[in-house]
Amino acid sequence: MDFFYRSSIQGQIVMTQKLQNYIDGEWVVPETQNYIEVTNPANSEVLGSAPDSTTKDVDSAVQAAKAAFKEWRQTPVLTRVRYLHRLKELCEERFEEISAICVKEAGKTLDEARGEIRRAIESIEFSFSVPSLMAGFKVEDISSSIDETAERQPLGVFAAITPFNFPFMVPLWFLPTAIACGNTYIMKPSPQTPLSMQILFEMLDEIGLPEGVVNLVHGGVESANALMEHPDIVGISFVGSSQVGKIIYTKSTSHGKRVQVQGGAKNYLAVFPDANLDAAVSNILGSAYGCAGQRCLAGSVVVAVGDVYDEFVSKLKDKASNLVVGNGLDNSSQMGSIISEASKTRILGLIEQGVKEGADLILDGREHEIAKVEGGAFLGPSIFTDVKRGSMLSREEIFGPVLSIMRAPDFDTAVEIINESRYGNAASIFTNNGGYAREFKYQVDAGNIGINIGVAAPSASFPFGGKKDSFFGDLHGQGDDSVRFFTDHKIVIERWP
Amino acid sequence: MDFFYRSSIQGQIVMTQKLQNYIDGEWVVPETQNYIEVTNPANSEVLGSAPDSTTKDVDSAVQAAKAAFKEWRQTPVLTRVRYLHRLKELCEERFEEISAICVKEAGKTLDEARGEIRRAIESIEFSFSVPSLMAGFKVEDISSSIDETAERQPLGVFAAITPFNFPFMVPLWFLPTAIACGNTYIMKPSPQTPLSMQILFEMLDEIGLPEGVVNLVHGGVESANALMEHPDIVGISFVGSSQVGKIIYTKSTSHGKRVQVQGGAKNYLAVFPDANLDAAVSNILGSAYGCAGQRCLAGSVVVAVGDVYDEFVSKLKDKASNLVVGNGLDNSSQMGSIISEASKTRILGLIEQGVKEGADLILDGREHEIAKVEGGAFLGPSIFTDVKRGSMLSREEIFGPVLSIMRAPDFDTAVEIINESRYGNAASIFTNNGGYAREFKYQVDAGNIGINIGVAAPSASFPFGGKKDSFFGDLHGQGDDSVRFFTDHKIVIERWP
Amino acid sequence: MDFFYRSSIQGQIVMTQKLQNYIDGEWVVPETQNYIEVTNPANSEVLGSAPDSTTKDVDSAVQAAKAAFKEWRQTPVLTRVRYLHRLKELCEERFEEISAICVKEAGKTLDEARGEIRRAIESIEFSFSVPSLMAGFKVEDISSSIDETAERQPLGVFAAITPFNFPFMVPLWFLPTAIACGNTYIMKPSPQTPLSMQILFEMLDEIGLPEGVVNLVHGGVESANALMEHPDIVGISFVGSSQVGKIIYTKSTSHGKRVQVQGGAKNYLAVFPDANLDAAVSNILGSAYGCAGQRCLAGSVVVAVGDVYDEFVSKLKDKASNLVVGNGLDNSSQMGSIISEASKTRILGLIEQGVKEGADLILDGREHEIAKVEGGAFLGPSIFTDVKRGSMLSREEIFGPVLSIMRAPDFDTAVEIINESRYGNAASIFTNNGGYAREFKYQVDAGNIGINIGVAAPSASFPFGGKKDSFFGDLHGQGDDSVRFFTDHKIVIERWP
Amino acid sequence: MDFFYRSSIQGQIVMTQKLQNYIDGEWVVPETQNYIEVTNPANSEVLGSAPDSTTKDVDSAVQAAKAAFKEWRQTPVLTRVRYLHRLKELCEERFEEISAICVKEAGKTLDEARGEIRRAIESIEFSFSVPSLMAGFKVEDISSSIDETAERQPLGVFAAITPFNFPFMVPLWFLPTAIACGNTYIMKPSPQTPLSMQILFEMLDEIGLPEGVVNLVHGGVESANALMEHPDIVGISFVGSSQVGKIIYTKSTSHGKRVQVQGGAKNYLAVFPDANLDAAVSNILGSAYGCAGQRCLAGSVVVAVGDVYDEFVSKLKDKASNLVVGNGLDNSSQMGSIISEASKTRILGLIEQGVKEGADLILDGREHEIAKVEGGAFLGPSIFTDVKRGSMLSREEIFGPVLSIMRAPDFDTAVEIINESRYGNAASIFTNNGGYAREFKYQVDAGNIGINIGVAAPSASFPFGGKKDSFFGDLHGQGDDSVRFFTDHKIVIERWP
Repeated sequence: MDFFYRSSIQGQIVMTQKLQNYIDGEWVVPETQNYIEVTNPANSEVLGSAPDSTTKDVDSAVQAAKAAFKEWRQTPVLTRVRYLHRLKELCEERFEEISAICVKEAGKTLDEARGEIRRAIESIEFSFSVPSLMAGFKVEDISSSIDETAERQPLGVFAAITPFNFPFMVPLWFLPTAIACGNTYIMKPSPQTPLSMQILFEMLDEIGLPEGVVNLVHGGVESANALMEHPDIVGISFVGSSQVGKIIYTKSTSHGKRVQVQGGAKNYLAVFPDANLDAAVSNILGSAYGCAGQRCLAGSVVVAVGDVYDEFVSKLKDKASNLVVGNGLDNSSQMGSIISEASKTRILGLIEQGVKEGADLILDGREHEIAKVEGGAFLGPSIFTDVKRGSMLSREEIFGPVLSIMRAPDFDTAVEIINESRYGNAASIFTNNGGYAREFKYQVDAGNIGINIGVAAPSASFPFGGKKDSFFGDLHGQGDDSVRFFTDHKIVIERWP
Repeated sequence: MDFFYRSSIQGQIVMTQKLQNYIDGEWVVPETQNYIEVTNPANSEVLGSAPDSTTKDVDSAVQAAKAAFKEWRQTPVLTRVRYLHRLKELCEERFEEISAICVKEAGKTLDEARGEIRRAIESIEFSFSVPSLMAGFKVEDISSSIDETAERQPLGVFAAITPFNFPFMVPLWFLPTAIACGNTYIMKPSPQTPLSMQILFEMLDEIGLPEGVVNLVHGGVESANALMEHPDIVGISFVGSSQVGKIIYTKSTSHGKRVQVQGGAKNYLAVFPDANLDAAVSNILGSAYGCAGQRCLAGSVVVAVGDVYDEFVSKLKDKASNLVVGNGLDNSSQMGSIISEASKTRILGLIEQGVKEGADLILDGREHEIAKVEGGAFLGPSIFTDVKRGSMLSREEIFGPVLSIMRAPDFDTAVEIINESRYGNAASIFTNNGGYAREFKYQVDAGNIGINIGVAAPSASFPFGGKKDSFFGDLHGQGDDSVRFFTDHKIVIERWP
Repeated sequence: MDFFYRSSIQGQIVMTQKLQNYIDGEWVVPETQNYIEVTNPANSEVLGSAPDSTTKDVDSAVQAAKAAFKEWRQTPVLTRVRYLHRLKELCEERFEEISAICVKEAGKTLDEARGEIRRAIESIEFSFSVPSLMAGFKVEDISSSIDETAERQPLGVFAAITPFNFPFMVPLWFLPTAIACGNTYIMKPSPQTPLSMQILFEMLDEIGLPEGVVNLVHGGVESANALMEHPDIVGISFVGSSQVGKIIYTKSTSHGKRVQVQGGAKNYLAVFPDANLDAAVSNILGSAYGCAGQRCLAGSVVVAVGDVYDEFVSKLKDKASNLVVGNGLDNSSQMGSIISEASKTRILGLIEQGVKEGADLILDGREHEIAKVEGGAFLGPSIFTDVKRGSMLSREEIFGPVLSIMRAPDFDTAVEIINESRYGNAASIFTNNGGYAREFKYQVDAGNIGINIGVAAPSASFPFGGKKDSFFGDLHGQGDDSVRFFTDHKIVIERWP
Repeated sequence: MDFFYRSSIQGQIVMTQKLQNYIDGEWVVPETQNYIEVTNPANSEVLGSAPDSTTKDVDSAVQAAKAAFKEWRQTPVLTRVRYLHRLKELCEERFEEISAICVKEAGKTLDEARGEIRRAIESIEFSFSVPSLMAGFKVEDISSSIDETAERQPLGVFAAITPFNFPFMVPLWFLPTAIACGNTYIMKPSPQTPLSMQILFEMLDEIGLPEGVVNLVHGGVESANALMEHPDIVGISFVGSSQVGKIIYTKSTSHGKRVQVQGGAKNYLAVFPDANLDAAVSNILGSAYGCAGQRCLAGSVVVAVGDVYDEFVSKLKDKASNLVVGNGLDNSSQMGSIISEASKTRILGLIEQGVKEGADLILDGREHEIAKVEGGAFLGPSIFTDVKRGSMLSREEIFGPVLSIMRAPDFDTAVEIINESRYGNAASIFTNNGGYAREFKYQVDAGNIGINIGVAAPSASFPFGGKKDSFFGDLHGQGDDSVRFFTDHKIVIERWP
């Protein structure tokens, strides 16, 4: 009676009623009776439903992962990584299929989805470095005839709680490196976008990992809480809003875990008169409206410095008003939909609030033509100008296709404006001046700095920066930081008689 | 009317009534009216009193540290480290004076105090490596014509909350590296042992650090809470009991901070029949009774494997019963006092509980002769044999001179016993067998492993290991971990037109 | 009229007359008129012939590599490494084919060849870490307002001159990491075993590397000299005999190059009475007679310590005398042939010399039964006992299936004997004693130490150790050392007004 | 009858006739009968004489160093580094005395000497990081139940052959790190400037290093050859001319050693129209005429790009013509003397050649007023303009106070000019443009790049870059490279039954 999602033929996607969890090497029907409907936000089509797993369902996954740990840890790291070599190959083979699924569940355009899958593969590729990066260190004769070693060892069961906006990429920031290091893993994706994880776990199943090494648990709040509270989970990685993230951070630490939380953002883009303006406009357009602004690295406020303001606004408005908004599967679409009607309603409220607080809505996304679609949570690009310091538009994360433009008389004021934010995810500067660039990256209190770059997304071998309310913890996702998060030093001090 | 402690003449210690805080480059009388008496536990002599600083006192320190950060961060790292070169020289000059103070406030022996100061200096020496260790990394052409850098930057104001048992050393695990990295610092030592910190800050004053870079706040619970709650403190290092540590971890993270917590311990020492028994006994004696057992690395349970049991017990009892217990300033003393009468009472209770649960008290520290002292919280070494798995003696941290001895038939059982503990600080094995040693360090779930070593204390360039309830967080104290704790990567992605 | 070797059908190897060079993305007929015949040493079958390339042929390759460098260097490292991901996949696909070719050209057994290809693939896998490992480092504010960066950049054209004994593996120690780092490459394999390189370059051709990035030049002395003398080659990697290696080192440095030379060896295996003797015998058998002793890590002398001598000799002789020697393609063969008749003649001379100098030839490989072959340079395993310190057998590299056994009364003498060698490639100890193991690795002056390991072959992520006459240079092959060999730091010091 | 140099009273320098060597912890009269006179180039005063040590004298030093190695290597690295902490303190105490000696023997100004001593101390400070930097690395379970470690071990006896221009600093690039790593050392300074080394070894004697750990051998060609040929020296560091350096590189490698050679230079400084011209002029002045141009990082050719030429030349000439040239001990002197009359004669010849080949000598140093001196090898600053590509002035290292100015129409031509050089030590750009700066450091083939920096001198924790004929070898002096040069990995692979 129960069916789960399957892509029975490569490239040919078949939707069925109910997703299953993947635990201990098998697809299993969870004990929960509650399911969450998964909808394509571009046309309201129901794509399937995901189980709202219970504490008991989570415990099954933890028991499987815990049991698998002992042997997996003893498997040589070179062998562990070879499974990930194979995973990469499968991702390449099913590249277009995964991209299409991401479009359907998340509403983005096909090119955006392809970019996401490419980044996801880069995270897998990063895990190929683990045999070198997880080496411990040793000093002979640290005292007379005593040698000391810091062994790097895996820790046990880790879990991730991931968001809807990059349903395939964000889980792969964590899982490959975690298991390459010798840990076992539980993935709990967003219940809004569980489909691409289904493909990931099909591939993880195909590569023949020992049972229990990787596990997939679909669900909402109950399953998230169960992960945070479970005594046999040693660490949690979370990506989502700052509000939820702070709760995750406190709750998980209160259960003694190591935690890394990537939260929300309000990213500023400073444009200087000496910048290459056409390039800046083009980069900022992509930053503000790519993925319909639903990225933690999306540009949200432009600070136009000095006399560049008018020309910049004019060029930007011109380009933005011509963006083709429509179903992501349509190749001509340059911008897709909002993740849900609820989210669209929230954004519409913020636009109204922006108008009320006196900013000038020079481009109104609500009136943007939407190409060839019926239904769907669409919204065109909006631009507010003359946004004031301290206003809602200058402070709050909108997570939608709304860009605010502020004026700053000079460099120092621009930096001041940026550093007033409670968030510290990303900030960019557009200039030709080496000195401005240096002082910008030195003074701006954000974790990812772009210099003539619209979206300052760190590569997989670099930690994903984040400061203030955009990050809680100390070891970030990606790069060597993640290898450290997924291992611990054991100190061995030896003297032989 | 108020006086503060001063060592007005080098080597000549003059005690006065009231300690002061050191804030913004000056010794200041705090606003608190409450003071905590500081007593020499070896003779009940009152050594002075420490302020029980208030939230407002803490805030003064934070404001000073915050104001100092901007310029200190810009001071070249080579210059910052040179202050620490000078600090080391002063510590060498005042070595004996500091040792004597530690004896007085903490009750340990002079040799133990000297060992502590030596270790403290090693932590300062480690900070000399910061110019190399805090380098960020860079990759050219990470994408076409795009370069990416991970800059390592300091974060702002850090604080430590430290315990009584190593009053001079533990603060120096943190402060030198923190400020070498460009942060500013607030130290809150144990109100039981605030005197040696007074000397440390005299020396920090003498080396001429800019005002506000280092700050000393004496106090108890209120000041600790104020540090954890203050929005301008970015990170907390804590060393103390697991019970308090867990509260610190949760509370500090709930205020968004990065935290590292070193908690309590129950350390096991496994002795194998092929061990060099005399060396093992001598090492274990030092481990169990050094600092009167008040060390987080103190050996607490011996697991004697196979037929080594009887000979081991006999040799150990023989040596332990001859330990000279007395005032630490007396050169003939081999063991000093307990930190306080309250603590002694707690230990006495545990000894009685041990007897009640059926273990054999073959050496009773309560009846040990105490050399030439009047008053003082003294207690001789105790040995329990035939301690059972699951008993209080096998599980609870005693933090006093009480050693429990258990039997194990073989290697696997010994490891099983050890891994049953809720703690994971240290464990040692005594053997000549390379294979046993390898499996021990591989299988035992403790952060610091000794092989033929009684006290597995990591050197300053290694992280101080810790697992399970002995450590909360991910980046440990000491070594490169501490450089990472005190810095954050800022990712800079640049493309030039 | 000229044909070159091709494996036209996967797994189905077709031999043709004349190999070609691979230069600038094409198979080319070199200008040389001289060809070197390639023979299967197991049956004297002629497998083809390799060009004895001239200085001019080498220059063509260098010009191609030099021209390709500029663009290849600018290709992002992630992209460069992706070619190597694909190379690995092809190696897996053609695994059996490559193994069979290695058997034919080098005379080894099929299992030995498979082991070689597996190791070769591990070297490719190591190169996947280059995006992390080639990062440079940066310090902000190294002086007031001055930042300093050490960029890691590729250098240009590198070349390798490789030996016959691991015809497929040794070239892959160098080429993947070199090109991952952004250099271009010239491979000159041994003219005795050029066939497997033909397959490698077919695969390199198939993965679509830009023209000129990798180049294959077959040849002997003239081409080797041309590489060492060419002003546009920045570095040379060589693996071969110490005698030739020393010439290579001096000659290449006299032309200003960076050089790494792995030379010959005389590897000692010390067996202690407490060792697991059966395991030791089995490991030593594999070490001494694997690849017919033609490995730079082959065990050549056993030092039997104390009273283990007689039992060890008896067990070893028993096993060695039952080794099945025959054509490597025959699955029952446990040992293959010597690389050539010339080499066999050389080894026979050394056996006679050993007899003459008074050692006891208790197993005579010259009389060993050779299974089902006609012709071929076969020789069974030999054992000399009572070999004396200072004798030829104890000093000279034999590079054949001849094992010498010496006596040592104790640990110190054993180490003394080993350290008398002019070589320092590998040494192993067989013991259960952790203290012996520690002192052995501490005191023995060899680059690769085995503890209960017969062939101490470093994994791809570790540098290949070597000391004394076994290595010339400072940066070794493999691991992070090789990333350093193939890159150089450029220091950038910047101040912005 | 023989006396040696002594600074019998701190700050009060007493010159006596004959220097001695320092071998095995003692000042010794060498067997040589030949002495080389040491002259103050600023006034021709004879300062003493240095022995021209023989092969036998060198051998004494090597034997002492070799004998000391075994125990020194076993001395814990923390202990080894503590000697260097003390050395730093002594250098600070005798700072002014050492500076004065450097002025006398090398002819530089007091401020230049102070700068040198400061840099020398930074090199000592760098060696304090060795306990962290010389750690080896380890991977558990590299194969099933097999662990692998790369131990970092010292190698034995190293030696340096150093030049006259930084008589105190260059030796300290090597010796501190070498001995911190556990090696023993032999220093052979330039016979032109042996006096400051006398002070260094007085201090090394005072800190109580074990006998033989450091040794000083004065001499010329014979002693240099003896070092290169001695079988017990494992590595040579050389700093000097490229011509000699190449010989050193080839000769030392022919004796199997590891070698690092820093050679000559011809450093270009590119000035762009958007540069801060006053700052650029001031930096270039210091670069070209500091130490009278006798630095391997001295600016030698300015490439003025576009229309900045005339204003730059005018400002530079104005400043250069006002430089006060005179005895370095005179506080008003801004430029000191040439190292010797011979060297001055050589430079005069090059000036004449420059005039002959048609360049415009707009400032003639031969006619510069020399302040208050009698005798001495003085020469004022010279400027050639309109220097042509390919001319001697654009190509040859002058190593004197002569600056050549060339024109370039644009960025690409400027880089082309710079990359035509056979040298690759340093190059600087003066600009505000971040894009120019990025392309300059990317494209220019020099090891040390300055961006708005006149003298691109790497800090002690960075390798000293160098390319083409400015460096031979692969591991550079300074920084982590030097730790690698002074250690080797020993690979240990272990399996326990």
